[in-house]
Amino acid sequence: MAKILTAVAKLETGMRFDAQSTSGYHVTLDSNVESGGQGAGFSPMEMLLAGLAGCTGIDVISILRKKRQGVTGYEVRVQGIRAEEHPKVFVEISVEHLVTGHNIQPAAVERAIKLSETRYCGAQAMLGTVARIHSTYRIIEV
Amino acid sequence: MAKILTAVAKLETGMRFDAQSTSGYHVTLDSNVESGGQGAGFSPMEMLLAGLAGCTGIDVISILRKKRQGVTGYEVRVQGIRAEEHPKVFVEISVEHLVTGHNIQPAAVERAIKLSETRYCGAQAMLGTVARIHSTYRIIEV
Repeated sequence: MAKILTAVAKLETGMRFDAQSTSGYHVTLDSNVESGGQGAGFSPMEMLLAGLAGCTGIDVISILRKKRQGVTGYEVRVQGIRAEEHPKVFVEISVEHLVTGHNIQPAAVERAIKLSETRYCGAQAMLGTVARIHSTYRIIEV
Repeated sequence: MAKILTAVAKLETGMRFDAQSTSGYHVTLDSNVESGGQGAGFSPMEMLLAGLAGCTGIDVISILRKKRQGVTGYEVRVQGIRAEEHPKVFVEISVEHLVTGHNIQPAAVERAIKLSETRYCGAQAMLGTVARIHSTYRIIEV
């Protein structure tokens, strides 16, 4: 991973921003209606959850492949509960890993999640200093 | 803002995931080539920076509007420097606010940034426990 990463958010209209990554990709961000936006894109705090999902997802799938697990499908579902008071940080985050495949070993999935949580996932290391992060998994045999 | 937010990342191919927000929007996430991906989307850690940019951007533009500043353009540029060692958290993040308009008051911009940093921005409150976050601004008179 690059040592320096950037993101640029450019105001379009209302509370809607176009955010661009170092790599040139775009995503629309918006505030929801009750906060004066139109909900026409990812909310900024959803971006943190999606980043966490991708970060741990990339770790886990790459470890499962190294362990030669026959994964045919994989999904990471993240849910964050925010504090009532400003700045409304996430106080709890649950991460559910759904691993689909044949003869997937639970121990391999547990180990992959543990390695991501404790060693590899930068998003988890950052968000986990404020939020309690709890991971679970389900294996779907096909 | 909603109290519970979710994000779901679904593996597509290689290290590429499609991430979906609560609100139904999508963004493609990928690992870069040196980490085994194809760089075909936002990297997960870039998502954190883009979330921070949008979060503080929404705060600042809404405060500047309340202060009746004639903002005609606004951009937030975020740069993060990662640690060398796993989990490669951001150790430093710089946030530059570029405010374009006529007769924009520097004091209003400073106050808006300060309020976002210290009170409103959840992403800053979370990432700022690990990274040193440094904000600057530029006013472009038109």
